[in-house]
Amino acid sequence: METEKRYEAGLDTMKELFSQEVRNGMEGIKQISPDLWEMIVSFGFGDIYSRNTLSHAQREVITLTTLITQGAFDQLRVHLQAALNVGLTKEEIMEIIIHCAGYVGFPKAVHAMGIAGEVFKGIEE
Amino acid sequence: METEKRYEAGLDTMKELFSQEVRNGMEGIKQISPDLWEMIVSFGFGDIYSRNTLSHAQREVITLTTLITQGAFDQLRVHLQAALNVGLTKEEIMEIIIHCAGYVGFPKAVHAMGIAGEVFKGIEE
Amino acid sequence: METEKRYEAGLDTMKELFSQEVRNGMEGIKQISPDLWEMIVSFGFGDIYSRNTLSHAQREVITLTTLITQGAFDQLRVHLQAALNVGLTKEEIMEIIIHCAGYVGFPKAVHAMGIAGEVFKGIEE
Amino acid sequence: METEKRYEAGLDTMKELFSQEVRNGMEGIKQISPDLWEMIVSFGFGDIYSRNTLSHAQREVITLTTLITQGAFDQLRVHLQAALNVGLTKEEIMEIIIHCAGYVGFPKAVHAMGIAGEVFKGIEE
Amino acid sequence: METEKRYEAGLDTMKELFSQEVRNGMEGIKQISPDLWEMIVSFGFGDIYSRNTLSHAQREVITLTTLITQGAFDQLRVHLQAALNVGLTKEEIMEIIIHCAGYVGFPKAVHAMGIAGEVFKGIEE
Amino acid sequence: METEKRYEAGLDTMKELFSQEVRNGMEGIKQISPDLWEMIVSFGFGDIYSRNTLSHAQREVITLTTLITQGAFDQLRVHLQAALNVGLTKEEIMEIIIHCAGYVGFPKAVHAMGIAGEVFKGIEE
Repeated sequence: METEKRYEAGLDTMKELFSQEVRNGMEGIKQISPDLWEMIVSFGFGDIYSRNTLSHAQREVITLTTLITQGAFDQLRVHLQAALNVGLTKEEIMEIIIHCAGYVGFPKAVHAMGIAGEVFKGIEE
Repeated sequence: METEKRYEAGLDTMKELFSQEVRNGMEGIKQISPDLWEMIVSFGFGDIYSRNTLSHAQREVITLTTLITQGAFDQLRVHLQAALNVGLTKEEIMEIIIHCAGYVGFPKAVHAMGIAGEVFKGIEE
Repeated sequence: METEKRYEAGLDTMKELFSQEVRNGMEGIKQISPDLWEMIVSFGFGDIYSRNTLSHAQREVITLTTLITQGAFDQLRVHLQAALNVGLTKEEIMEIIIHCAGYVGFPKAVHAMGIAGEVFKGIEE
Repeated sequence: METEKRYEAGLDTMKELFSQEVRNGMEGIKQISPDLWEMIVSFGFGDIYSRNTLSHAQREVITLTTLITQGAFDQLRVHLQAALNVGLTKEEIMEIIIHCAGYVGFPKAVHAMGIAGEVFKGIEE
Repeated sequence: METEKRYEAGLDTMKELFSQEVRNGMEGIKQISPDLWEMIVSFGFGDIYSRNTLSHAQREVITLTTLITQGAFDQLRVHLQAALNVGLTKEEIMEIIIHCAGYVGFPKAVHAMGIAGEVFKGIEE
Repeated sequence: METEKRYEAGLDTMKELFSQEVRNGMEGIKQISPDLWEMIVSFGFGDIYSRNTLSHAQREVITLTTLITQGAFDQLRVHLQAALNVGLTKEEIMEIIIHCAGYVGFPKAVHAMGIAGEVFKGIEE
C-alpha cells in the first residue's frame, strides 16, 4: 500500500473513533511535528487500527487497558470517548477498569475511574 | 457473599480458564503462602473474573494486554493458554500483540510474540 | 468472613488512616462505580490493610514506596497524610523518598519530595 | 574527591545545563529536604553528569529518553530546556521523541511532543 | 565526608546486609565497571543505606517493595536474603508481598512470592 | 514511499546494525507473525531508524536507554551488539548505563551492566 493510501485509511479510522472536536485537538501535534503526526495517522491508525481480525470496540478495550497499565492518563480521556463512540457501554468501560484493578493495583484503577466519571458526566450534560 | 462461596466461585472460574496441569502448577503459591492463594482465588477469580458484563474471552484480552504492557512475561504463558481455552483464536491473540506494538513499543511486543509462538507450537504438538 | 464484615473492617481501617475530609473525597469513586468502591473498602482496606503481621505505619511505608516507584503521584497526597496519621514522622517520610532515589532514580524522588513539601506545609498552616 | 568538591562540581555542571531561573525553581527541593538536594547536586550532577566519555549533549539525549520512557513528564520541561542549552537542536529533540515512539509507543511520545511544543514556543516568544 | 570514607561506610553496611557469598557474586559488576561498582558502594550503601532515621530492616521493606513494583526480579533474591539477615521474618516478607498485591496487582506479587518460596527453601536446607 | 521501498530501507538499515547471525535469530518472529515482522522492518527500521537528523550511533544511545528504563532486558543483548557495530565504544556504552543509574535507579543499571559484561566478553573471545 502506498503511503498516501495508508494516511487516508488512518484518517478514515480516526473519523470513526473521534469526534471532530477531539480530532482538532489532536492536530496540535501536527503543528509541532508533522512527521510524528504522519506516523500516528499512517502507522497507528492506518496500519494498525484499520486491520481486520479485531473490531474497533475490541481495539479500544486493548487501548484503554494499556493506557491504564502504563499510567498514560493524559491520553485516556480521548480514548474513553472513542470507546463510547465505537459501541462500548459505560458499564463495559467501568468493568475494564475493575478488571485492571486486580492486574495493576488500585491506584491506577482509581485514577482511571475518576477520569471515566468526568468523561461520562461531560457526555450526559 | 460469604468467603467460602467466593472461593468456590473462583475455583469454578479457574477450571474454565486453565487446564488441570496449569492449575497444579499455580498451586505452588498455595504451598508458600496460603493467604495470597486465597486472595488470588477469592478476589482475583471469584470477585473479578466471575463478574458479568464482560465475557471470559474479553477478560483475557484485557489480561494479555496488561501483562504485555507491564512486562509481566512470567505470567503470560498461562494466560495465552487461558485465552485459547475461552475461545480466542491464534489470529486474535497475535492481533492483540500487534495492536500493543503501537501502544507499548516493539520490544515488549516482540517478547510477547516470541512466547506466543512457543505456546502455539506446544499446542500443535 | 462475610462480605458485610469485610466491608465494616475496611471502613474501620480507613478511619484510622484518613481524615473525614479525605474520606469524603475518596467517596467520589463510590458515586461513579459502587462496585469498585466496594472492592477498595472490602478487599483493599478490609482484607489487606486490616491484616496483622505489619502495623499500619509499616504498611504506609510500603504504600508510599510503591506509589513513588510506579509514578502514581495522583494518589500520593492522601497516603502522605495517612502516613503522618498512623505515626510516621516527616523525617521518616523524607527518608523513604531519599532511599527510593537510589532505587527508582532522581526524577520520581524529586516529584515525590515536591508533593511531600506541599503536604507538610498544608499541615503546618 | 571530598564532598565539598563533588558539590562544587555539581553546581558548576548545573550552571551549564540550566538557566538561573530554572535553578531557582529546582532549589524548592533544598528547602524541603537539604539532604536530597545535596545528593542531587553532588551525586547526580557532580559524580554522574560531570564525568567524561559522554558530552553534556549526549547525556541530555539519555535523560530525555529515560524521562519519556518512564513517563516522568513532570521533569521533562527543564531537561528540554537543558537539551537546547547544551546544543541539541529542536529537530534533534523532536527526532529523539520520534525514535522513542517505536520503543515506548505513541501515548508517551505524543505527551512528550506536546510538552516540547510548549517549551519551543516559550523560547521563541 | 571523603570518598574513601564513603566507600568504607558502604562496605561495612554491605557486610551487615549480605553474606560473603552474595557479596562475592555482586563483585562481578566490579570486574566489568569499577566506576559503577564504586557508585553502588559509596552512594548506594555508603550515602543512602548508612543513614540514620530508618533501620536496615525498614530499608529492606522499601527495597523489596520497589523491586517488586518495578519488576526488578533479577535483584529480588539477594534482597530477600538481606531482609532475613537484618531481622525481617518470613511472615513479614510474605506480608509485604501480599500488601503489594493490592497496589501493583497479582502478576508481580505472584512472581515475587515464587522467588520468596525458593529463597526460604534454600535457607531451610 | 511505497511499502516495498519502506521494507527494503528497513532491511538495509538492519544490515548496518545487526550481524547475519543476529538477523537470523530475529527472523524467528517472521515465522510466527509475518505481519508483525513486516511492521518491525518497514516501520521500525524503515520509517524510524532510516531517518536523518540522528546517526545510527545516536539512535542506539536512545534505544539502549529506553530498553534499560523499561526493563526490556530480553532485547538488550542484540542492541548492545548493534551499538558496538555502529561505532559506540565499550566505554561509551558503560557510561550510558552509569548515567541511567541516576535516572532509573541501581537495580536496572546493575542488570544492564551484567548483560553488557557478557556481550563484551563474547566479542573478545
